[in-house]
Amino acid sequence: MKKSLLALAALTAFAGAASAQSSVTLFGIVDVNLRSIDNGNGTIKSLSSSGINTSRLGFRGIEDLGGGLRAGFWIEGQMDPDTGTAQGQTWQRRSTVSLIGGFGEVRLGRDYKPTFWNTTVFDPFGTNGVGNQNNVLPTLGGAPAAGFNLVRADNAVGYFLPTMGGVYGQLMVAAGEGTTQKYYGGRIGYAAGPINIAASYGKNDQESGLGNLLSNDYNVWNVGASFDAKFALFAVLYNKHEYTDLDLTSYMAAVTVPVGAGKFQFSYNHSDVDVRIAGVRRERSLKQFAFGYQYDLSKRTALYAHYAQLDNDVGLNSVVGSPGRVVGTGFKSKGYEFGVRHAF
Amino acid sequence: MKKSLLALAALTAFAGAASAQSSVTLFGIVDVNLRSIDNGNGTIKSLSSSGINTSRLGFRGIEDLGGGLRAGFWIEGQMDPDTGTAQGQTWQRRSTVSLIGGFGEVRLGRDYKPTFWNTTVFDPFGTNGVGNQNNVLPTLGGAPAAGFNLVRADNAVGYFLPTMGGVYGQLMVAAGEGTTQKYYGGRIGYAAGPINIAASYGKNDQESGLGNLLSNDYNVWNVGASFDAKFALFAVLYNKHEYTDLDLTSYMAAVTVPVGAGKFQFSYNHSDVDVRIAGVRRERSLKQFAFGYQYDLSKRTALYAHYAQLDNDVGLNSVVGSPGRVVGTGFKSKGYEFGVRHAF
Amino acid sequence: MKKSLLALAALTAFAGAASAQSSVTLFGIVDVNLRSIDNGNGTIKSLSSSGINTSRLGFRGIEDLGGGLRAGFWIEGQMDPDTGTAQGQTWQRRSTVSLIGGFGEVRLGRDYKPTFWNTTVFDPFGTNGVGNQNNVLPTLGGAPAAGFNLVRADNAVGYFLPTMGGVYGQLMVAAGEGTTQKYYGGRIGYAAGPINIAASYGKNDQESGLGNLLSNDYNVWNVGASFDAKFALFAVLYNKHEYTDLDLTSYMAAVTVPVGAGKFQFSYNHSDVDVRIAGVRRERSLKQFAFGYQYDLSKRTALYAHYAQLDNDVGLNSVVGSPGRVVGTGFKSKGYEFGVRHAF
Repeated sequence: MKKSLLALAALTAFAGAASAQSSVTLFGIVDVNLRSIDNGNGTIKSLSSSGINTSRLGFRGIEDLGGGLRAGFWIEGQMDPDTGTAQGQTWQRRSTVSLIGGFGEVRLGRDYKPTFWNTTVFDPFGTNGVGNQNNVLPTLGGAPAAGFNLVRADNAVGYFLPTMGGVYGQLMVAAGEGTTQKYYGGRIGYAAGPINIAASYGKNDQESGLGNLLSNDYNVWNVGASFDAKFALFAVLYNKHEYTDLDLTSYMAAVTVPVGAGKFQFSYNHSDVDVRIAGVRRERSLKQFAFGYQYDLSKRTALYAHYAQLDNDVGLNSVVGSPGRVVGTGFKSKGYEFGVRHAF
Repeated sequence: MKKSLLALAALTAFAGAASAQSSVTLFGIVDVNLRSIDNGNGTIKSLSSSGINTSRLGFRGIEDLGGGLRAGFWIEGQMDPDTGTAQGQTWQRRSTVSLIGGFGEVRLGRDYKPTFWNTTVFDPFGTNGVGNQNNVLPTLGGAPAAGFNLVRADNAVGYFLPTMGGVYGQLMVAAGEGTTQKYYGGRIGYAAGPINIAASYGKNDQESGLGNLLSNDYNVWNVGASFDAKFALFAVLYNKHEYTDLDLTSYMAAVTVPVGAGKFQFSYNHSDVDVRIAGVRRERSLKQFAFGYQYDLSKRTALYAHYAQLDNDVGLNSVVGSPGRVVGTGFKSKGYEFGVRHAF
Repeated sequence: MKKSLLALAALTAFAGAASAQSSVTLFGIVDVNLRSIDNGNGTIKSLSSSGINTSRLGFRGIEDLGGGLRAGFWIEGQMDPDTGTAQGQTWQRRSTVSLIGGFGEVRLGRDYKPTFWNTTVFDPFGTNGVGNQNNVLPTLGGAPAAGFNLVRADNAVGYFLPTMGGVYGQLMVAAGEGTTQKYYGGRIGYAAGPINIAASYGKNDQESGLGNLLSNDYNVWNVGASFDAKFALFAVLYNKHEYTDLDLTSYMAAVTVPVGAGKFQFSYNHSDVDVRIAGVRRERSLKQFAFGYQYDLSKRTALYAHYAQLDNDVGLNSVVGSPGRVVGTGFKSKGYEFGVRHAF
């Protein structure tokens, strides 16, 4: 049977000035792994998704409007190939329309918050899999750490600087529309030669009358840096969350060592949490150690193995991944996974 | 990274006799705007979708079967790029399979009702954005104006006339399948030179035993016409809805003035509603004035600005768009939006 | 307007060794029919989907990694074009990533169970439409015949034999992940010249503590065979389901007679059910006769007509399709449908 074949072509400078041609691109990632999770009370073995990249399907395009001006769109949704489930809003990973020119890029729609973007780029595991840096951001009882979306914003207007030497940056304002928090955020960085350093700040604005939403502003800021010493890439990240009765500080130190077509990855994350629940002030911490190896069969297809271990203080119940049984708090969560990541 | 590139090609006579070649087309629209809505009790600023076209993603194709016979399919879904949300049934904008030949087109599946199609083609705003002609079809308490879908039908068998001079037309029958109203509708028109005129009629058939559905037939009919005087396109629309205790008549007069790569759009809509609720007969009306400007950066990408104002009689609470606070009735609803529409 | 055109190309040896080129393929089927169903208490006429193939949209691809190794993905979802509804998990028909080489294929994700696959390939109606072989697997009160998914497994690891003469086979293990049954299954077959014969076995493993899930193992096994005598293709199928208090045996005999670009299809299905409900043992049977004609306008587009009649013993209420009124048990269900199947 004849089938619709989408021709493959090198699109080496997709977002760059060289892409004078209009294009529509279908893209995606299917990332599946065999995973084992032990939270101190029984191991659950599973087939899971998204060990090194979140599985996704998307369409994006660039139209050359002449005179250096381009229009672009991007719609991208998450799916979990272990069960075939498309997540939530379907194109909830990103859905934007852009105008791009010498002035930079204006981007409208749903997109990453700058503060999240600045953590995921420095995490050697890309905030995926059992070694995810986000595992050390606990969702404490009563604390809003998970009470709203720290990753993406709906209804956002974003602006990205044009290429200016090594300086890059972005601003975002997301409308609250009377039902959710407004978000203001920005990011500024510098990348040249082996060095990359960037800082970001974001504020989820308390709006009175929103009932079960924030009763105060929720602020996030962080600084990340990496140094590519050729034999290894070193990265650090400092991350701060501030809310009425919450004060969370996390640190990451990471090393990636390339060996042939593969690379070894190591990260250590530590989080100090100072939270007041029901009038009682509590200081807690958790630590996560993660180790990984990724072997690239091609630029699109990789095999990987990850191991991570997370130690919770009493009162904390973070885990290295799901599925897994969670009983009580203060346990040790251990997990490993073997997977295949295929991008198209 | 190598990416899947879908080659762009001119497809100038897609649905015409010249498309002898089989094809599958990925298409879509991303339309996002900055919007402000004031319903007389506070303004809500938002990022919204679909100011001049409904944002969508779709796939369609034509297969040449030889001997003048063609088969086609069309699946198209709505998404709201401001939040990345795919709406409802996912391919709910249209999902059809067609057989096309000298006899015309037989189309099976979910599609526009002829009566809706005949309003959207004459509205200069295409029944989108704050100037939407549909804003003057109020959803009265107890009246079924919004009690079922006036726009599309599931389970429809449609027939479209072949090209016959300037005459065009279509018929639709949609099965009730024991759970919803049957729909019968048709449309006949004539387009030649500067003139386009068409009328349509549709009937949602009452079926006994359907409980909370219609207790009587719901009839819609309308006539639209446009005249292209080159310096301006003039359009009028007359629209009638009849139900047991409802009698709605709406009028539209509209002008579109092309200026270079842009166009100015103006429409005035008036609606008279005669409705009986709880035994009391009420006569009400509402008026909407809308103004717009659209500038085409290319055939695919446009910038636009719209302003609309709608006056409700006491007892009516129609709005020019959402989001926006609605308090009571008889208020004035005002809104404006600035947007980008990008088609692919 | 310029549109994104996905070029069509012959992809004759998609999954074979000859497909040395990397590709991403968009594919799908739109299959719509006019259907009438009579379950002995009133006829319901409808527009329905999937008379000869399940309507679907999917993306799949193969990447040549060199050295005989290939990576592949496949995501495929069901949609019902009569209403535009995408079903359930969206890519729930199949979502897999594969590594393929001389060793065969390792496939991870959501996929057909081997036991289902072995029934659908021998049914002349492909387990679709009113003549579906599955209609004779009754969903008895209290029996788990429909209590879980007999068709597909989430979280599955599959292995497929490489081409070895006429021998083919596959194994599947699907993780229960603490919330559903584990599944183990396999299939082995032989196809050469006019002969194709295959057997499969699958076990849904009871897991204690799963509450309303299986309280015992649920086993399925079946054998199918076909013989292509050129003037006709003969097929038989034996299917066995075993559960605590359920013992179901079904038989199918089928003939397909090609005539020019068309084919006539006939199948007879008989099912004997031995089930204990509330301590009472009941022996019941049902019979289904189905007749069809399919005319291929091209390899992608077909017209078809099906008629099926199913006789229920008292206590059984299986039907040849939906929609249709079901009142009581022991009735005769009759249905016919006329449709168009278009693949892309």
